[in-house]
Amino acid sequence: VRIAVLSIGDELLWGEIVDTNFARIAARCYDVGLPVTAHRTVGDDEAAIAAALGELAAGADALIVTGGLGPTSDDLTAAAAAKASGVELERNEAALAHVRHMAGRFGGDLPPANEKQALIPTGAVLIDNPLGTACGFSFDLAGCRCFFLPGVPREMERMLEESVLPEILALRRSPLVCRTLVFTVFGPSEAELGTRLEGALPGGRGVTIAYCVSFPEILVKLRATGTSETGVAAALDTAVSIVRPLLGEDLVAEGEEGLDAVLARLLKERGVTLALAESCTGGLLAGRITAVAGSSAYFLEGAVTYANAAKVRVLGVPEPLLAEKGAVSPETAEAMAAGMRRAAGSDLALAVTGIAGPDGGTPDKPVGTVYIALADSGGCLVRHCLFRGSREEIRTITAYTALDWLRRRLLVQ
Amino acid sequence: VRIAVLSIGDELLWGEIVDTNFARIAARCYDVGLPVTAHRTVGDDEAAIAAALGELAAGADALIVTGGLGPTSDDLTAAAAAKASGVELERNEAALAHVRHMAGRFGGDLPPANEKQALIPTGAVLIDNPLGTACGFSFDLAGCRCFFLPGVPREMERMLEESVLPEILALRRSPLVCRTLVFTVFGPSEAELGTRLEGALPGGRGVTIAYCVSFPEILVKLRATGTSETGVAAALDTAVSIVRPLLGEDLVAEGEEGLDAVLARLLKERGVTLALAESCTGGLLAGRITAVAGSSAYFLEGAVTYANAAKVRVLGVPEPLLAEKGAVSPETAEAMAAGMRRAAGSDLALAVTGIAGPDGGTPDKPVGTVYIALADSGGCLVRHCLFRGSREEIRTITAYTALDWLRRRLLVQ
Repeated sequence: VRIAVLSIGDELLWGEIVDTNFARIAARCYDVGLPVTAHRTVGDDEAAIAAALGELAAGADALIVTGGLGPTSDDLTAAAAAKASGVELERNEAALAHVRHMAGRFGGDLPPANEKQALIPTGAVLIDNPLGTACGFSFDLAGCRCFFLPGVPREMERMLEESVLPEILALRRSPLVCRTLVFTVFGPSEAELGTRLEGALPGGRGVTIAYCVSFPEILVKLRATGTSETGVAAALDTAVSIVRPLLGEDLVAEGEEGLDAVLARLLKERGVTLALAESCTGGLLAGRITAVAGSSAYFLEGAVTYANAAKVRVLGVPEPLLAEKGAVSPETAEAMAAGMRRAAGSDLALAVTGIAGPDGGTPDKPVGTVYIALADSGGCLVRHCLFRGSREEIRTITAYTALDWLRRRLLVQ
Repeated sequence: VRIAVLSIGDELLWGEIVDTNFARIAARCYDVGLPVTAHRTVGDDEAAIAAALGELAAGADALIVTGGLGPTSDDLTAAAAAKASGVELERNEAALAHVRHMAGRFGGDLPPANEKQALIPTGAVLIDNPLGTACGFSFDLAGCRCFFLPGVPREMERMLEESVLPEILALRRSPLVCRTLVFTVFGPSEAELGTRLEGALPGGRGVTIAYCVSFPEILVKLRATGTSETGVAAALDTAVSIVRPLLGEDLVAEGEEGLDAVLARLLKERGVTLALAESCTGGLLAGRITAVAGSSAYFLEGAVTYANAAKVRVLGVPEPLLAEKGAVSPETAEAMAAGMRRAAGSDLALAVTGIAGPDGGTPDKPVGTVYIALADSGGCLVRHCLFRGSREEIRTITAYTALDWLRRRLLVQ
């Protein structure tokens, strides 16, 4: 199955946005064993879209198109699709019902702009978009199945998964099976990981290792290819059983799971409650912990104590300590964690204080200086870190490092 | 001048990396008034590269190619370029000297892999790469000037700026100037905005309006093109002065500024301090407020009161109120905001409580039910919202709505 992708939008040709949609489509097609063979980008230009559709369809079995299905006048994909396949645009009643439903206008007039979204090439099959007004659709062009999806990433991704990939998989004649397992790793550098895993897998078994930096994580991808499901699964299992112990505690998560989900699972399994006290991360830890549904089962509360007065009043950090050691110090971090744990009555409390920059650094405590404290019934441990990067990068890696420390702590509980 | 771009690399077709190189090239070409007109992506496949070169060159005056100039066996761009132009690869002495210099091997043998990087199509002109071993080169193909650059972003960008763009600009006969201004808007839907702005700009003045949904914001882009800097600037200024009042308070920010930066500016200008009390957003508001450097000047503290006990202890929400009205109620939101303002001694306090889902909804209070309260010296206002979407989407739009409400409140102060 030869798969082509067409990205549509002036904002792409003008460099205003990066084409993450194409990367997502390409990755998902690769995951299911059908790598993309051709890709083009065109602007919001009816003739250019129609020409690209015809040329790509001529060399492919399936064509995935994104963008240009919105309500405004620069959205020309449906018109171009009709032109390319020599049919008219017509008002599709099912599409109109969908637009009405998603726009929340069950009776009365739709805005004319939305009404335009119900114009679909004659004979096309609708693709359900559970998340937005734009209707997707598909039709055959020169023997190639063409799928038209909106450019909004979350809508596109959902429709790709639920409607497009299953239909494309059904086009397969001789299956090349690809299976990928992604390990999320935190701790060692990419080079250190490369050295650690070099030569770990026996050659010629159809399993490769690839590394991908996804700051602050490193993704280690094991890919197995072959002609049979069972053979590929067995090869991947063998590779996983070799690589997993080499990663040890640096292995944060496997597959779709990420750090946040792993932490949620560990906190639930261990039956422990958590409270957070944050200064430089300003709520990022709490935001990640509460991103997981059901987090109220173990997460009691968080305090973002930016002002020193809040550290004193909310966490009970002694004023003389703040005056003597400073807000960014191991002593303050420890007092924050211990104070939070006491106030919230939680089993564990994690506290962070540091200098995210770009200002506020000193020779003694440069920008990137961070103290993380973890309090439990046995006492409190404090870690000192020195990170480099922008304010955003320092805040991100600080939050990740603190939560990863909590993960390692829960592993040994 | 018609400009085409060809991105080369299996890692692109397999979705392993996002093609930021193309976005960079496209943005720079747009900046200098020469928007890209065509773009393709191909894998590391000599025949596919050669075919794409020929087809793109036939429809363009300049073609910028990135990727596949590295030392390894999957780097096939130079061979494909030679094939497309019907010449041989030959060892180029200047290229060899460059590779030796950059690889730090002034005498003795080069690794064979690096030696391969000195093989250049006969007759091509070298493009200096000050940052790496890969040599760039250029030649004419079917009347189109073709530039070959490495895929390493920093090397590509430097060569694009120093060598390629100047040469492309020299191809211009009549210069086309482009200028863009982006308005960030929140409140109306894309369709409502389209209706509001329809016909606002006089036709034929070379200024267009485009809409881009960047959840939860909508970007309204005014683009002016013309032949003179002053004419384009004047046309854009006129368009901005027409559109800005039509957007009114829904206009969050202009240009590079975003909501967070606007809020920071308004809080500083008004000289008011802020505290936050969050339940369902779990620290997202605090995370955004503290993302801005210098936020300690106006942000005192935040409380993530997930457990009811924390709402009572930290914010002073009366237990009978929680029992009677529930944690997700206008009364609780108001008590959270008023309690936070009192405890922190801030001028303003913003509080959020709601049901982010996917569980926890009831017929009375379905998932997506959110109450936002804003307390100041005059009292407390409460807003009720009902959002749809995933847990992540509900949390994101809740945080955005709350901060946008604060922005509107500060505008009228």
